Amino acid sequence: MTKKVTWDINPQRTALIIVDMQKVFCEKGQALYVPDTAQIIGHIQSLTALMRSKNMPVIYLRHVVRGDGSDTGRMKDLYPNVDEILARTDPAVEIIDELSPQVGDIIVDKLFYSGFHNTDLDAILRMKDIDTLIVCGTVTNVCCETTIRDGVHREYKMIAVSDANAAMAYPDMGFGAVSAAEVQRISLSAMAYEFAEVTTTENLIQRMA
Amino acid sequence: MTKKVTWDINPQRTALIIVDMQKVFCEKGQALYVPDTAQIIGHIQSLTALMRSKNMPVIYLRHVVRGDGSDTGRMKDLYPNVDEILARTDPAVEIIDELSPQVGDIIVDKLFYSGFHNTDLDAILRMKDIDTLIVCGTVTNVCCETTIRDGVHREYKMIAVSDANAAMAYPDMGFGAVSAAEVQRISLSAMAYEFAEVTTTENLIQRMA
Repeated sequence: MTKKVTWDINPQRTALIIVDMQKVFCEKGQALYVPDTAQIIGHIQSLTALMRSKNMPVIYLRHVVRGDGSDTGRMKDLYPNVDEILARTDPAVEIIDELSPQVGDIIVDKLFYSGFHNTDLDAILRMKDIDTLIVCGTVTNVCCETTIRDGVHREYKMIAVSDANAAMAYPDMGFGAVSAAEVQRISLSAMAYEFAEVTTTENLIQRMA
Repeated sequence: MTKKVTWDINPQRTALIIVDMQKVFCEKGQALYVPDTAQIIGHIQSLTALMRSKNMPVIYLRHVVRGDGSDTGRMKDLYPNVDEILARTDPAVEIIDELSPQVGDIIVDKLFYSGFHNTDLDAILRMKDIDTLIVCGTVTNVCCETTIRDGVHREYKMIAVSDANAAMAYPDMGFGAVSAAEVQRISLSAMAYEFAEVTTTENLIQRMA
C-alpha cells in the first residue's frame, strides 16, 4: 500500500461535506436506492458528532431539481425521470432521519452531481476560511467524486472517507456488469492516486479529537 | 448491454477534444508514460482526418505548468515532481509527432486535470456554437473523465470514445492493485451510466461521414 498524501488537518479550517444522504438514495424502494448507504450511516454519525462538538462546519449537499423541466437538460437525457424523482416538493429529497441536520448545519442544494457547480458552496467555504474538506455520503464515484475533483481543482485539501462513502453496482453498459464493491475499490484507488487523501473514519476521528 | 443515451451529432456543432496526447504520457521512458496510449493513436488519427475534412474543430488539451511552482498547489502535493515533468519549457509536454496539430487546430493548455478549469475552452466552444464534444486521449478516468464531467455539467453533449481513450494501472493504494483494463472498464461503465454517451471510433465515423 502506498499513500501519496496525508494532509495536516487544522480543525479551525476543516468542514465535513455530507453528499446526498437523502431518502431517495438511502431508503429501500426509493427510485435511486443505493443499498450500501446502510453501512455508512453510523460512520457519518460519528463524524458529525465530533465535528459539531468542536464547532466545525457540517455541510449537507442535496440533489434537488425544480421539477418543471426547466433545469434538467443533460441530466434528464441520462435520467429521463429526474424531474419526478428529485423534485424539490417530493419528501424523498429530504435528508434521512438518522442524519437530520441540526441547528447551525448548512444545506446546499445542487442541480447536478458536483457540490460546487452553480452553487454557493465555494463562497460559503471562503467566508469560513475553510481549506480542508472531509467528504462522505453517496454515490462514491459520482456526486462524491465529482465534488472531490472540483474541490481539488479549487485548491482545497480533499479527504475521501473510505468507509463513509457508498457506491452502487452498474448493469452491463457494454463492458460487463460491475459490482458496487468493484466501483468502490477503483474509485477509492483513483481518488487516492489523483485527487485526494483517502482514509478511514477512525483515522480522522483520532486526528481531530 | 444497455445504452442510456445516443445523442444526435450535428457536424456543424461538434468538436473533437484530444486530451493530453503529449510525449510525457505517450512515449516509453517518459515520466508519466501510459502504455495503452499506443493502441489509441490510430483511432485518433481516423477521427482527426474525418473532422478536418469536414472543417469540424480539432482541439488539443495539454497539461502544462509554469515550472516555477507558482501554479502547482494540490497538484504538487499529489505529484511532487510536477514542476519538473510538466514544465512548459520541457519538450516532453509537446503533442506526439503522430498527432501533430495542423493549421486551424486549437491548443488549450491547462494546469490541472480538467480542460474547462481556468481555461478559455468554454469560451472557444461558445464562439463556435459547439454543443457536442467527442473526447479521446489519456488518461481515461483522470483528465478525459474530469473534462467529460465538467462538460456535461455545462450542458454539452459529451461523447467518450471507448477505443480512443487510454487508462493506466494503479499500485495498491490500500484497496489492492488495479490493472489498466479494470480502470478502463469501470470508467467507461460509469461514464455511460452517469456522464456521457460511450461509443466506438467506427460508430462515430459512420455517423459523421
